[in-house]
Amino acid sequence: MTILRSPRLADGSGRGIPDATVARLPVYLRALNSLAEQGVLSCASNELAEQAGVNPAKLRKDLSYLGSYGTRGVGYDVEYLRYQIAREMGQTQDWDVVIVGVGNLGSALSAYQGFSARGIRVAALVDADPQRVGTVVSDIVVSSVDELEAIVAERKIAIGVIATPGTAAQEVADRLVAAGITSILNFAPAIVQVPDGVDVRKVDLSIELQILAYHEQRKTGTTSTTSKEVIA
Amino acid sequence: MTILRSPRLADGSGRGIPDATVARLPVYLRALNSLAEQGVLSCASNELAEQAGVNPAKLRKDLSYLGSYGTRGVGYDVEYLRYQIAREMGQTQDWDVVIVGVGNLGSALSAYQGFSARGIRVAALVDADPQRVGTVVSDIVVSSVDELEAIVAERKIAIGVIATPGTAAQEVADRLVAAGITSILNFAPAIVQVPDGVDVRKVDLSIELQILAYHEQRKTGTTSTTSKEVIA
Repeated sequence: MTILRSPRLADGSGRGIPDATVARLPVYLRALNSLAEQGVLSCASNELAEQAGVNPAKLRKDLSYLGSYGTRGVGYDVEYLRYQIAREMGQTQDWDVVIVGVGNLGSALSAYQGFSARGIRVAALVDADPQRVGTVVSDIVVSSVDELEAIVAERKIAIGVIATPGTAAQEVADRLVAAGITSILNFAPAIVQVPDGVDVRKVDLSIELQILAYHEQRKTGTTSTTSKEVIA
Repeated sequence: MTILRSPRLADGSGRGIPDATVARLPVYLRALNSLAEQGVLSCASNELAEQAGVNPAKLRKDLSYLGSYGTRGVGYDVEYLRYQIAREMGQTQDWDVVIVGVGNLGSALSAYQGFSARGIRVAALVDADPQRVGTVVSDIVVSSVDELEAIVAERKIAIGVIATPGTAAQEVADRLVAAGITSILNFAPAIVQVPDGVDVRKVDLSIELQILAYHEQRKTGTTSTTSKEVIA
């Protein structure tokens, strides 16, 4: 198998970028995509910062890690900056993903249109329910979870996505790790333990709703008539 | 109807917190919940910052807006800090949400266990498909989208969640706004336009996957054999 390296790694310039910056790059990319959809060709750092919800100084600092400084009086070229961030994030190649659990959430994720443009390809779906195995979801035949290890090896899966009930999450994580997976995205409502060297990220679908609720509270002075003492 | 005000608003101290801080508060809350689940009672700002993926100075600054400074040598009380953030975010009351679109994503959201502990209550589900209207999803009878305005008024809905296909998103947003909703969470793969004074947040389910792909690329030196030139 040929090992391809990204330009940054190949020329020895691929030193690490701070994790907090890495976490913001997809947000900048989302803002840039939104500008591009509106036909914007270039943008000032202030505009991009506002779209992304960060302060302009931080944005400029973050983008400087990519060697991207914009042009005084013109700003950033939207297309080129998209390319630079996408390259940095590894999106100039495809990452094959297996989704474990093909319930409502797994099915929704398999159909999610935002993945392919981000270099993420749903390569396989697996489920423990015999009723679901063999059915076709988003043009993919659902495989049995018994075949998980074989699928990971054969299809060169890079990332495992856990979309099972919380009770199954740890077992699925253990099997993904045993199969050689070192990057896991966990949608299940459970904390999973993994060995050192394995990255797990947990998605909290309520975060954006919490931010809206905060602003709603400010706007309305809290008009709800129900009130709770403390959250659980 | 009685108008309840949060303690911070009532005593006049409820001045705004920077948007970037507001966006990080739910992330701190997630980290604190994770610590609490592990039985941790108090934590240093460094530990909490690491869990949340921000730098410790920023965390301390953010929490200072809540009047929370921790105790030297002891750190923050996990339970009390959870309460402080939850109160600030408006989670000490319930926010009623309508989900528009009860496909896989809408169904998954309606069953999402992370909402109720965050003060978010799915109060209604609506769909345009007559086949879905009248069915029961997560113990809620699905209503027709024709009743959207009536439902918003009757149930005092604070936030609308769009989980429709992209093509329906703008019309749904228009109707939510006409019904008086000023906070919208958009899961549909489309940009929606709204008047000033209405907050829209767009969820990008691929962001966490992009962050994993970045780290995967660093770990493996990119072992995928497929390579694309530029993302779309």
